[in-house]
Amino acid sequence: MGDNHNYSDFSYNDDSPIAAFATIPGSSALTLIRCSGKGAIEAASSVFAPDKLTGAPANYVVHGWIVKAGEKIDEVLVSVFRSPKSYTGEDSLDISCHGGASAGKAVMDALKSSGFRDALPGEFTFRAFVNGKLDLTKAESVMELVSAKTDTSRRHAVSRLSGSLQTEIEEIKKSLVQVLSGAEIYLDYSEDEVGADTDEDAGKLPYRDIALEALERLKKLSDSWRIERIYQEGVTVVIAGRPNAGKSSLFNALLKEDRSIVTEIPGTTRDWIEAWVSIEGIPVRLVDTAGLRDSAETVEKIGVDRSRKLLQEADIVLYLIDGAQGITGEDKDFIDSGAGSGSKADNSGVNNGADSAHEPCNRQLLIWNKADIAPAPSSTQSFISVSAKTGEGLAQINTAISSAIQGQASSDTPITAAVGTKRQKTLVDAACSALEEALSLAQRNEPLDLIAPLLREAVNSLGEITGEVSTADILEEMFSRFCVGK
Amino acid sequence: MGDNHNYSDFSYNDDSPIAAFATIPGSSALTLIRCSGKGAIEAASSVFAPDKLTGAPANYVVHGWIVKAGEKIDEVLVSVFRSPKSYTGEDSLDISCHGGASAGKAVMDALKSSGFRDALPGEFTFRAFVNGKLDLTKAESVMELVSAKTDTSRRHAVSRLSGSLQTEIEEIKKSLVQVLSGAEIYLDYSEDEVGADTDEDAGKLPYRDIALEALERLKKLSDSWRIERIYQEGVTVVIAGRPNAGKSSLFNALLKEDRSIVTEIPGTTRDWIEAWVSIEGIPVRLVDTAGLRDSAETVEKIGVDRSRKLLQEADIVLYLIDGAQGITGEDKDFIDSGAGSGSKADNSGVNNGADSAHEPCNRQLLIWNKADIAPAPSSTQSFISVSAKTGEGLAQINTAISSAIQGQASSDTPITAAVGTKRQKTLVDAACSALEEALSLAQRNEPLDLIAPLLREAVNSLGEITGEVSTADILEEMFSRFCVGK
Repeated sequence: MGDNHNYSDFSYNDDSPIAAFATIPGSSALTLIRCSGKGAIEAASSVFAPDKLTGAPANYVVHGWIVKAGEKIDEVLVSVFRSPKSYTGEDSLDISCHGGASAGKAVMDALKSSGFRDALPGEFTFRAFVNGKLDLTKAESVMELVSAKTDTSRRHAVSRLSGSLQTEIEEIKKSLVQVLSGAEIYLDYSEDEVGADTDEDAGKLPYRDIALEALERLKKLSDSWRIERIYQEGVTVVIAGRPNAGKSSLFNALLKEDRSIVTEIPGTTRDWIEAWVSIEGIPVRLVDTAGLRDSAETVEKIGVDRSRKLLQEADIVLYLIDGAQGITGEDKDFIDSGAGSGSKADNSGVNNGADSAHEPCNRQLLIWNKADIAPAPSSTQSFISVSAKTGEGLAQINTAISSAIQGQASSDTPITAAVGTKRQKTLVDAACSALEEALSLAQRNEPLDLIAPLLREAVNSLGEITGEVSTADILEEMFSRFCVGK
Repeated sequence: MGDNHNYSDFSYNDDSPIAAFATIPGSSALTLIRCSGKGAIEAASSVFAPDKLTGAPANYVVHGWIVKAGEKIDEVLVSVFRSPKSYTGEDSLDISCHGGASAGKAVMDALKSSGFRDALPGEFTFRAFVNGKLDLTKAESVMELVSAKTDTSRRHAVSRLSGSLQTEIEEIKKSLVQVLSGAEIYLDYSEDEVGADTDEDAGKLPYRDIALEALERLKKLSDSWRIERIYQEGVTVVIAGRPNAGKSSLFNALLKEDRSIVTEIPGTTRDWIEAWVSIEGIPVRLVDTAGLRDSAETVEKIGVDRSRKLLQEADIVLYLIDGAQGITGEDKDFIDSGAGSGSKADNSGVNNGADSAHEPCNRQLLIWNKADIAPAPSSTQSFISVSAKTGEGLAQINTAISSAIQGQASSDTPITAAVGTKRQKTLVDAACSALEEALSLAQRNEPLDLIAPLLREAVNSLGEITGEVSTADILEEMFSRFCVGK
């Protein structure tokens, strides 16, 4: 940890005993309450019987009762952790109470009466960071992991939790520190010997190759955000098409369960239906517009607010042709209008505009449905031929969606170091541009005393990613977005 | 444990490694997975790294990773318990994974691949019972605890979990065994010396006082079920009254939060609204009938299905008088009709008829509302005078509800041994009537060889309560109603 920390004006800044539910209280077998802080074991022991909590060895599970004013509250198991060997680095306890609405609440009340206060969001992980138990990339991956929507999302978060990003950042930073040291030594030497301002070699950057390689790695990290963000936030796939084209059937087939109303009568699905599905590991918000009769029946009415909004939100539009009817005029109009296609999309509302880090891969996939009764004509090779009824062709839709979104990459690709949050991406970009400017100044033989500060800026940005360099407001902003109990 | 167990045809009958979520998977900091069974530690260790699970001491917490096919799945804490010192009595593990939808599921998949199967409902507690870790009264209290609706419900369950019922049953049984032994010794003696059938002393029951005291205690236990059941299942309190009498306002005031629409316009609350509240520790399903215009407007229409059903379900009807209007003809009709009053209630539909163990304490409480602007006339002393607006008189409503339901008892009364399930109540009653019959035969000087079997029957019923005597079908029926993970 550096000396750049300043927690004095930071609301998380104490080490008093805190407690929080680490699981959702409800109709489950158990409820877990997490406790940490200076004196936490002694405080808990005042509401615990028999009296074997304070004497318990580290990492030991003690069985007993939470007792308040002589009354048994709940029979519990308490795992005792002793500083510094705990998640937070402080004395800590995990209390496993009975489940249900009442027991956990009663235990929490007893803990409050014995000196614990409610933990702030992310306060356990914040303390872990402050006590050097994990760096900021690992801390952030903890939240990524909790909110991982698919198994692939989880794998990406786990990679960062095991330190892949931290290691990559530290290696790049080490390289840049080497370049910076070289420059500074040269500066010192120049000043002593001949004076930096007039030295002809001023622009010659030592270890230029190393700097170039670092830049390469930083750019790769920056690029990684597009896919990482998709795995975290998911994409929106909207199913469109004329009434009776089989939108709800396709929706259900993709869901592999019967959530929407499948019917032969147009317009019986009320409004739109959506569900999250995992398509080749990508979290997909699948939207069935079957109920939006206006947009479905006449493409002229595409201007209607709701349907336009859905199509604008879409990263991909699956446009269904009713194979039994063939391509109608309406279908032609929709396809030609490019609604939902990347080429046509006005960027005003797409993907929340400028804030969107992943490029809108907004495009149409044309689906020829009911292939079981009406095979797609051979001329229409640009259609994916499916039967929502028999399941034929569904795998091709999944593959088409996946490759449209992530290009070459697939969920099976080995996971390499990648940035996992907007904060990390912003800092990588800052390091990138400082380094690029440094290299460009060096290219133009500008003096090293102009270049060195840029290198230092890049190093500092990388230090901020891991938290080696940090400020109270950044930390507060970051940890307050965590859930309580984490 | 006795030798009466027969698990051979019982589906829970093995000790293979089982695993289940013990907490609700969702957006929480942690997810707890419980594992138990023969070889459970070795099985888990095959998907755990570093390799320090099998060597871990008992009751020790190990930090590491769940790993499958070389890939890190999740970073976890594993509490290791070794037979017989565990909840189930078997080798067991509690695995604390990261929260969220994905991590716990991935860890569970890894466990399945290493030899675990999904636990059946209540299987952990079943194994604990089979291995002599707890008796059936404690096992059942575990489920009571999880579903406890109020703090008082929890206190009653905790009392049984700490063994209050088990101790009481065992003490009573010990007394009866003493009586039974006395009778059997006497029988043996009689046969040897003079022949039992002709002995004049045949009907003299040894230790009759002890038997009478046991009967007394059994009757007390049987009576305890009425209140215990109320604390477990709760009661229904229906608020009725003419439009604008302030039903929704009272509902909200009793809820202490704004859940229902409070309005001056009659009939704006759609249909009825209900919520669970704790009134002096009693779980109360509070029903606001404000939306049921038919029942509210004209008492003649009380026959309308829905309102009649609600009033029939009611253990207590709070009938509101609009103080600003005074008692109207409609009010008079409702009150005089005795709708919702115990005296008038036809028992056909009340409390699900015969299956109801707690007496329908179905009765009307008359409430004079808007006392802040129109004080109740002094003649109407049978009304509880309240203002839902100012909160005046609400405490009296709570007290009136509580004492109407539990009579003398209150939530502050020290908790004594009480039965906690229908099963226990049925067996206590069986013991009671066998004992009563034995005593009555003895009273009529019937021979001891008719009395002794009845005493044995009573002893066996008590043995069934704790599980000393049990059969596979009873156990299966009992544990299958538990939740998974318990």
